[in-house]
Amino acid sequence: MNPEPFLQLDRVIHEKGRLAMMSMLAASPRLSFTELRDALAMTDGNITAHARTLQEAGYIAVTKVFQAGRPLTTFSLTESGRAAFAGYVRLLERIVDQTRGQV
Amino acid sequence: MNPEPFLQLDRVIHEKGRLAMMSMLAASPRLSFTELRDALAMTDGNITAHARTLQEAGYIAVTKVFQAGRPLTTFSLTESGRAAFAGYVRLLERIVDQTRGQV
Repeated sequence: MNPEPFLQLDRVIHEKGRLAMMSMLAASPRLSFTELRDALAMTDGNITAHARTLQEAGYIAVTKVFQAGRPLTTFSLTESGRAAFAGYVRLLERIVDQTRGQV
Repeated sequence: MNPEPFLQLDRVIHEKGRLAMMSMLAASPRLSFTELRDALAMTDGNITAHARTLQEAGYIAVTKVFQAGRPLTTFSLTESGRAAFAGYVRLLERIVDQTRGQV
């Protein structure tokens, strides 16, 4: 058992709410606050807190626009976020490969 | 993108220190405190705290014996811990499968 891939897991992405958000954003060019919240059944507070962490890490871009006079917040992965997520998924693949057959 | 496997991830196992400990224990019948600590380059305090969480969840058994007059603590997966870890790894496989090709 090689512990290296576990130790390398990026904590910013590994938290399961943020992992779900990053995965949704990897599958779409951009998603609104409401789309993300409803798809993941998360609270407004959780989405806001995790989005801030991801934005501070440089992994997502947050855009606020007005649409029909109402504020609309959308999220998209940055290039750096896409690269970090790809690296994270490669580590998960190594973890799955090395644990398969043990359980 | 189906968010279900993310939402089902067991938080007890998902934390990366505990994930590493569970994976090490899935690969060995039992490991001593020292073996686990040295293999994972974790502090005594971290091993102790995570072992308590895993024990309280019923996932590991903790055994203390005296060997040559010195206390020796060993850890092993319980049946319930092995089942929970197997379920966790199946979810990781689903996550890797559905994110492959997106990144």
